[in-house]
Amino acid sequence: MHLFYQPDPHVFELDEEEARHSSKVLRLGSGDMIYVTNGKGLLQKCRLNIQGRKVGYEVIESKMTERRNFAVNMAIAPTRKAERNEWMVEKMTEIGVERIDFVVTEHTNPETLNRVVNLTRLNRIAAAAMKQSQQYYMPVITVNNKYEPFIKNVGDAIRLIAYVPEQNTVEHVFSKIKKGSDTTLLIGPEGDFSPKEVELALENGFETVSLGPTRLRTETAAVAGCHAINLAQIL
Amino acid sequence: MHLFYQPDPHVFELDEEEARHSSKVLRLGSGDMIYVTNGKGLLQKCRLNIQGRKVGYEVIESKMTERRNFAVNMAIAPTRKAERNEWMVEKMTEIGVERIDFVVTEHTNPETLNRVVNLTRLNRIAAAAMKQSQQYYMPVITVNNKYEPFIKNVGDAIRLIAYVPEQNTVEHVFSKIKKGSDTTLLIGPEGDFSPKEVELALENGFETVSLGPTRLRTETAAVAGCHAINLAQIL
Repeated sequence: MHLFYQPDPHVFELDEEEARHSSKVLRLGSGDMIYVTNGKGLLQKCRLNIQGRKVGYEVIESKMTERRNFAVNMAIAPTRKAERNEWMVEKMTEIGVERIDFVVTEHTNPETLNRVVNLTRLNRIAAAAMKQSQQYYMPVITVNNKYEPFIKNVGDAIRLIAYVPEQNTVEHVFSKIKKGSDTTLLIGPEGDFSPKEVELALENGFETVSLGPTRLRTETAAVAGCHAINLAQIL
Repeated sequence: MHLFYQPDPHVFELDEEEARHSSKVLRLGSGDMIYVTNGKGLLQKCRLNIQGRKVGYEVIESKMTERRNFAVNMAIAPTRKAERNEWMVEKMTEIGVERIDFVVTEHTNPETLNRVVNLTRLNRIAAAAMKQSQQYYMPVITVNNKYEPFIKNVGDAIRLIAYVPEQNTVEHVFSKIKKGSDTTLLIGPEGDFSPKEVELALENGFETVSLGPTRLRTETAAVAGCHAINLAQIL
């Protein structure tokens, strides 16, 4: 099932990159059937109608697919390397994630920020991962969130911060998840959260959790945390 | 705690790359203390003794750390991109893995094989991940394993193949794990295992398992599967 992405409801044509992929790679032609999603749950079965370079399509069948009954919301301090941030977004999208909010913390390097968190690129990567994994909902991705207002604004029932204070036993994220409830998991930067940031999170209803016995890089922690929450919801 | 890696028991000096890292990046000098592991469980507390370019050390304390009481053994068909194979090795090492055996399957592209699975590079990446995550055991990595002899040779109590036959309900890998037992999980190539390969695995004591409700790329499947087994063992 070849799945394509067209977020604009008024457009019945594939964008340039997808058009090229459909003709040159998949060698599809007029009359062939494809599926198109808008990334908001809509799944359309369509017949291709190619005119020159334009790969248009006619919608034959249309259905709204349901969202799953829990949200996995990841709030992450960006790493310093663009490719690691992109890898994170790709993997979390494949596994299943509703929101990816990049949050600027005290130990986040501000100079590289715009270069390493390019929202256009991240959305493109998420769209590719969504199609690859046959899902119909795009994660919502935001960047440049300031820590304090972000923390104060989180409304999910379950709020967790990946942080293990020295000599404290902290439960694993898996055990904190309630089926059917929405979770926000906060992942810190390479230099970890500052004590003030941890305190602010605790004051706003967050609980500290562990992501396992080994020390993980930020992007690994994000994927592991996202995966653990998904497992706790579905198993 | 700065952790370095020296696999050779007769050498009391850091290799060129680590030497450069210790002086130029960490700015350590003679008299400073470091930890050195041999990747086989040995953890040594050492005092640096720098002479010109040579960063030697004297062992002050030495201890053998215990292996964990279960093994996570991943057998994976390599992807076609070197960097995706390298990401996989890095992430599984951070999370915890005893063996990574690359297995050549029917749908593995043989032309790119030597270029995308470079054992020297993979070991270097695993060593960096081991140190980063403060572990003292290197995963054993092998490449170019032929499918049939490999499958026949797996001796672990729990043998699993990530494969979901159409219209069959298959249990999640998480539920198949027995605490304290060793597991081999087989991850297929982008084009999936052939029916013959699945049959051969089943004949040799493997069971099919799911890695979750979404379709994952090979490298994502490997990291997710490795992570799920680790969680099932420690939670």
